[in-house]
Amino acid sequence: MQSFELDKTDFSRIKNALNSDNASLQAVLSEYHASEIAILFERLSDEDRQRIINLLSVEIASEVISEMHEETHPEELLLMLHPDKRTEIVEELDYDDAADIIAQLEVEEQQELLDDLSEDDASNIRNLLSYQEDTAGGLMNTEFIRINLNLTKKDAIDEIIRQSEEMEEFYTIYVIDDANIFQGIVSLKDLLKAKGNVNISELVKAEVAWVSPDTDQEEVARLISQYNITSIPVLAEDMRLLGRVTFDDVIDVLEDENTEDILKISGVSEDEELSGNWREAVKSRLPWLIINLATAFLASAVVRFYEPTLAKIAVLTAYMTIIAGMGGNAATQALAVTVRRISLYDLTDHQAYRTVLKEFTVGMINGAATGLIVLVFSLIFDSNPLMGLVIFLAMTGNLVVAGIAGAAIPLLLKRVGIDPAIASSIIITTFTDIFGFFLLLGLASRLLL
Amino acid sequence: MQSFELDKTDFSRIKNALNSDNASLQAVLSEYHASEIAILFERLSDEDRQRIINLLSVEIASEVISEMHEETHPEELLLMLHPDKRTEIVEELDYDDAADIIAQLEVEEQQELLDDLSEDDASNIRNLLSYQEDTAGGLMNTEFIRINLNLTKKDAIDEIIRQSEEMEEFYTIYVIDDANIFQGIVSLKDLLKAKGNVNISELVKAEVAWVSPDTDQEEVARLISQYNITSIPVLAEDMRLLGRVTFDDVIDVLEDENTEDILKISGVSEDEELSGNWREAVKSRLPWLIINLATAFLASAVVRFYEPTLAKIAVLTAYMTIIAGMGGNAATQALAVTVRRISLYDLTDHQAYRTVLKEFTVGMINGAATGLIVLVFSLIFDSNPLMGLVIFLAMTGNLVVAGIAGAAIPLLLKRVGIDPAIASSIIITTFTDIFGFFLLLGLASRLLL
Repeated sequence: MQSFELDKTDFSRIKNALNSDNASLQAVLSEYHASEIAILFERLSDEDRQRIINLLSVEIASEVISEMHEETHPEELLLMLHPDKRTEIVEELDYDDAADIIAQLEVEEQQELLDDLSEDDASNIRNLLSYQEDTAGGLMNTEFIRINLNLTKKDAIDEIIRQSEEMEEFYTIYVIDDANIFQGIVSLKDLLKAKGNVNISELVKAEVAWVSPDTDQEEVARLISQYNITSIPVLAEDMRLLGRVTFDDVIDVLEDENTEDILKISGVSEDEELSGNWREAVKSRLPWLIINLATAFLASAVVRFYEPTLAKIAVLTAYMTIIAGMGGNAATQALAVTVRRISLYDLTDHQAYRTVLKEFTVGMINGAATGLIVLVFSLIFDSNPLMGLVIFLAMTGNLVVAGIAGAAIPLLLKRVGIDPAIASSIIITTFTDIFGFFLLLGLASRLLL
Repeated sequence: MQSFELDKTDFSRIKNALNSDNASLQAVLSEYHASEIAILFERLSDEDRQRIINLLSVEIASEVISEMHEETHPEELLLMLHPDKRTEIVEELDYDDAADIIAQLEVEEQQELLDDLSEDDASNIRNLLSYQEDTAGGLMNTEFIRINLNLTKKDAIDEIIRQSEEMEEFYTIYVIDDANIFQGIVSLKDLLKAKGNVNISELVKAEVAWVSPDTDQEEVARLISQYNITSIPVLAEDMRLLGRVTFDDVIDVLEDENTEDILKISGVSEDEELSGNWREAVKSRLPWLIINLATAFLASAVVRFYEPTLAKIAVLTAYMTIIAGMGGNAATQALAVTVRRISLYDLTDHQAYRTVLKEFTVGMINGAATGLIVLVFSLIFDSNPLMGLVIFLAMTGNLVVAGIAGAAIPLLLKRVGIDPAIASSIIITTFTDIFGFFLLLGLASRLLL
C-alpha cells in the first residue's frame, strides 16, 4: 500500500523536523507508527535517534527499540540513553525483546543494565538470556494468557481480561493445571459459545503442537507454518509451560534464514552482517577465497600438466575458459535448485536418486546444445572438424558432471548431517573447472596431437 | 519437536497400511493431522492419494487438499476424484484455497468444476480467480468476521460467535458500516472488557494498515511483518471490505520469495519448479547458459587476442584460470550480500555509495591477500619476480573490479526498477573473467615481453 510505504518525503520531513524545535518534531513523530520510526532510524545518526527516543513516550520508545532491526544496533542506542530513561524503556519491553537486545551487549554492560531493573524483571530476562538465541527458548515470550483447568467460563473470561491488560495482543489461551503443567489450549470462540456453568476442562483441546526450549528456530518456524497457528507453546521436560513463540517471531526467523541461505550458497559466512563494515566482510569472505585458491591451484596444475598440448594448439586456451565457465554456471544452477529443494522437502532415497538422474539429463541436453554452438563456431574459425568434436565432447561432458555434482554433493552433505548450502558455488565451480580442463585438454592431446 | 517431525517410520506405517484393508488404513490415518497427510502425499502415488482422500471425511479431505504443496498438484488429484466427492470437497474448502487450486486447471476444467458448485460458491471463487495470483486479491480470504459499527457489545459477541461457526480460526474482528465500508478493527480484549451497553463505534480502532486487491504479495508480507498483525484487510477503491490476507499466507509467500531469490541469483528462471522434470529445467536454464556463452565468447576473444603472449609464456595460462576463478567467486560474494541487503532495506544514495566503497575496500584487501599467496607460489616455481608482480597486480585488480561490479550492478538495476537478483552470478562472473584476462595478459605483455 502506497500509503504505508515510507518514501523520500517521509525521510525529508523527519530531517527537517530534526532541525526545528522539539514541539514540532514531536508533532511530526506522532504521525508515525513505532515500526515506521524504527525504519526511519536506519537513516539517522545516533544523536538524532537519541533525541527522538527521549521525546517519545516510554510506550512508543520501547516499541521503537523493539522494532529496530538487529543490524541497526538498538542495544547501543540503549546504552547512550540516561540510565533512568533506559530502565523505564527496558521495563516496558516484552521480556523476550529485552533479552534479545541485552544479549548483544558485553557481559559487564548487561550486568549494569539488569541491576537497575526490578528483581522480577531482571530475573525473568536473565532466565531468557540463558537460552541459545536461535532456539525456541531464545525466541519465546514469557508473557501470555494462561488459565487454570478448573475455572468456570465466567471466571476464565475475567481472568483473560485481567491478564491481557499487560500485553498488546494475545493470540492463544493456554490451559494449565495447579502445578503449571500444560494441559492444552482453549479457543476463545468455544469459550464464548459455552454455557455459563461449563468448566474449562470440558473445552480444552489437548492435541496441540509444542516445542521445548532447545528446539531449533527453523523447526519452530516449520511447525507454526505447517499447522497455521499464531503461536506455539514452549514446554519444559516436565511439561511445565515456559513460554510461547508467536508467528511474528517466525516471520523474522524466515527472513534471517533466507539471508543465511543466499550468503552460504555464495560462499559468504552466514554471520556476515549485510550492513557490516569492510573488516567484518573480509573476516567472513577471505577464508572462503583461500579455500577456493587451494582448489584453483589444483585446476591450474591440470593446465600446467597439459602445457605441451596448449603450446602446440594455442587456441585451446580460449575454449578452455569457455568450457570451464559454462560448467561452473551449470553447476551453480543445479546446486541452487537442489539446495532449495532439500530445505523445503525431505527427500526419500528414491527421490534423491531421481534428482541426480534429472540433473544428469539436463546437463546432457544443455551441454549438447551449447556444445553444438561452440562446435559451429570452431568449424568456422578453426576449420578443423576434429577440434570441433573435442570441444563438443568436452562441453557436454563438463555440463553433465556439473549437473551431477551440483545435485549429488548437497544431497550427500544432507545425508551426513551437514548443511547442504555449504556446498557453495565456490566449491562446485572449481570442481567443474578441474574436470573441464581435464576433459578438454585430455581429449585434445589424444585426438589432436 | 521430534514428536511432530514425520520420520521414516511414519511413511512405512502408511505404506503398510496401504497394503491392508480400508478399515486399518483409516485407523492409521486418523492418527495424523491433515497437514501431515499432505506431507505424506509427497511420497505417494496418485492412486494411493486418491484412495486415501476417498477414505477421509470431507472436512479432513479438503484440509489435506488445501495443505498440499502447489508442486504436488492438488488440482490434478481433484480431477481424478468422482465428481460428487470432488464437489463436496471444493465446497468445503475456503474460497481462497479453492481459487488457488482451481487456478492451476485448464479453463475448460475450471468451468466443468465450477458448474457443479452452488451458485454462491461458484461466483465467490470466480471472483477470486479474477485476481493475479501474486497480489493481495490472489491471496485474500473472503471468509472473516465483520460486524456492524452500530451493534452493542452483547449483539456484537453473539454475531461474532455466529459468524465464527463457519471458520476454523478468526484472528481479527473487522468493523463495517451499513454500506460495507471498512471502519476499522475492534480488539476482542477491548470488546470483552467493555460495559454491556457500550457501542462498537466507541471501541473501533480506525488507524490500521490495509491493502488493495492489486497490492503485490511482497508488499503485503512486508506490512504484516512490520506491524506484527495476524491479518490485513483488503479494501476496494471505495473502501468496501473485500477480504483479508492472513499471516499464514504470508509465511508461504516468504518461502516462495526465498526460492525465487536463490534461483534468480544462480541464473535459474524463478518459475522453474524445484521438483519439475528435466524438460522444465532445460527450458528454464538453457537460455541463461546461452547468454553466458555469448559473454564467454567475449572472454575467449580476449584470450585469443593475447595468444602471442600466451605462446611465449605458457605458464600464464595456469595463472589465468586462477585469477578468473577467484574474481568470479569474489564477485558472487559481493553480489549475494548486496542483493540481499537491497531486498531487506531500501538504501539512500549515500548508503548505496558507501556499499560500493566498502566492496572496493574488501576487494582490495582480499585481492592483495590472495594475490600475495600466488606471488609467493610464483616466486618459488617460476623464479621470476616480475612474473610474480604481474600476477599479484592482476589478482588484486580483478578482485577490486569484482567487488565494485558485484555491488554496483544490482544497485543500478534496482535504481532503474529491475529486480537486482537478475544480476545473477552468471552475468557477474563472465564480467570478471573478461576483465581478469585483460588485466593479467595485458600486464604480462607490457612487463614480461
